[in-house]
Amino acid sequence: MLIGGLFLEKQELLYEGKAKKLYKTSESDVIWVEYLNQATALNGKKKDLIQGKGELNNQITSLLFSLLKEAGVHNHFIKKLSKTEQLIESVTMFPLEVVLRNISAGSFSKRFGVKEGTPLANPIIEFYLKDDKLDDPMMNEEHIQLLELTTAEEIKKIKKMTLEVNTALQKVFKKIDIQLIDFKLEFGKQADGNILLADEISPDTCRLWDVKTGEHLDKDVYRRDLGNLVPVYQEVFERLLKLESI
Amino acid sequence: MLIGGLFLEKQELLYEGKAKKLYKTSESDVIWVEYLNQATALNGKKKDLIQGKGELNNQITSLLFSLLKEAGVHNHFIKKLSKTEQLIESVTMFPLEVVLRNISAGSFSKRFGVKEGTPLANPIIEFYLKDDKLDDPMMNEEHIQLLELTTAEEIKKIKKMTLEVNTALQKVFKKIDIQLIDFKLEFGKQADGNILLADEISPDTCRLWDVKTGEHLDKDVYRRDLGNLVPVYQEVFERLLKLESI
Ligand SMILES: Nc1ncnc2c1ncn2[C@@H]1O[C@H](COP(=O)(O)OP(=O)(O)OP(=O)(O)O)[C@@H](O)[C@H]1O
Ligand SMILES: Nc1ncnc2c1ncn2[C@@H]1O[C@H](COP(=O)(O)OP(=O)(O)OP(=O)(O)O)[C@@H](O)[C@H]1O
Ligand SMILES: [Mg+2]
Ligand SMILES: [Mg+2]
Repeated sequence: MLIGGLFLEKQELLYEGKAKKLYKTSESDVIWVEYLNQATALNGKKKDLIQGKGELNNQITSLLFSLLKEAGVHNHFIKKLSKTEQLIESVTMFPLEVVLRNISAGSFSKRFGVKEGTPLANPIIEFYLKDDKLDDPMMNEEHIQLLELTTAEEIKKIKKMTLEVNTALQKVFKKIDIQLIDFKLEFGKQADGNILLADEISPDTCRLWDVKTGEHLDKDVYRRDLGNLVPVYQEVFERLLKLESI
Repeated sequence: MLIGGLFLEKQELLYEGKAKKLYKTSESDVIWVEYLNQATALNGKKKDLIQGKGELNNQITSLLFSLLKEAGVHNHFIKKLSKTEQLIESVTMFPLEVVLRNISAGSFSKRFGVKEGTPLANPIIEFYLKDDKLDDPMMNEEHIQLLELTTAEEIKKIKKMTLEVNTALQKVFKKIDIQLIDFKLEFGKQADGNILLADEISPDTCRLWDVKTGEHLDKDVYRRDLGNLVPVYQEVFERLLKLESI
């Protein structure tokens, strides 16, 4: 495949995650990603094959990472290759899940006894250790530094970027009548120390509520057995497409 | 009872907790505390009456709060009244449990998969919401401010005081061949905004390991069914008494 004047060859499988497969390419710093039709919840305890999910997430995340690039948020996205594939810059991932919350929901509501849907006075950032064996425990910043997951400088930068992602995404979703409740990000580092937003941003990793009906337009449909996930993700994708053509 | 030239009368019960009873006194800012013989663990799910426990904890905490006062840590302790009773200054408690860890143990070891007994590169401070119904969830500093439990200034002050307590207690316990693994503190605020260390410091609230044998000299004996708690707490008390007479 010829990409920006460069011939790129898909090579061996690097890693198979719960939502995507990562392949090496002939360029050492470029990864070929294939989005899978697998849905998981409860740290992998619930698992299903859902035809069409990979396609939707690849298209949605491609679109959002492009918009974020325009908004000045450095990220790993290079190019969408097909409905289910994209190219990304390879980074060394921080083993962290960075969660930002605008509105109380999910584990936050449970943990602190705050009703789902309660607006938070300001966006709250939480860090979780990305470790399925340990069930992704929440960490404070002292834990992160103790375990040497990032430096103090890097954590500051990551928090700043997370707030920037929030500002940009809120603007996007507002235009298509979607409330951005919360989302999970992952970050990685290039060889030169530059931090990039990585992984994906999709209805798998965000809570999205329809502004008018309050309907769940995200993975909670699957987590909570509220119905078929595909038309819901399709709805999010179609609204985003409208946005592009505005 | 005549206390420092003041006649003090024990009045009605203010509050009965899991470990002590708090009584009003004729002085509005003074509380009469009675330490109970009750042991609890697992957020109250495990509960037993242990003859002699209240006495030991009252004596140990009285001794440690006196030493901390000498070390310059402002605290609520006024005076031991009897083996099971003491007078304290009344404060408005922050609904926080402040945990400091020098060595990995307990929930930290479980949460992060770090072997019990592993020294931490530097003391780690954690905050938990003191709320039995919610099972005392861990919080980060953004949560604390969002829920308006303290101001940013107060949390800074509380962290500073917690580190000072650690320095002072480590010095004390080192002299009596005890390793201070971790401990839980509670803080409160006087009417004028002054922050005091409050509640108790005892083998109920610290992890204490014998330097030579590694033996547990704390509530883990009860939590983990390792034997009778009384001789163990007695051992800690006796070692502390030796210290006073050095
Ligand atoms: N730019 C990137 N460079 C390298 N790795 C990346 C990049 N972006 C995402 N990844 C990693 O790709 C892996 C596969 O993603 P996927 O979402 O399928 O995994 P996961 O199920 O979330 O995590 P895992 O299976 O590792 O527990 C994840 O470990 C993710 O951190
Ligand atoms: N100086 C003080 N002024 C006011 N209250 C205090 C002071 N020191 C401790 N307390 C409170 O005394 C109460 C009784 O203590 P105890 O340890 O028995 O309760 P607990 O079981 O830990 O907590 P609870 O029963 O409230 O869940 C606690 O709520 C504690 O926060
Ligand atoms: Mg993932
Ligand atoms: Mg208590």
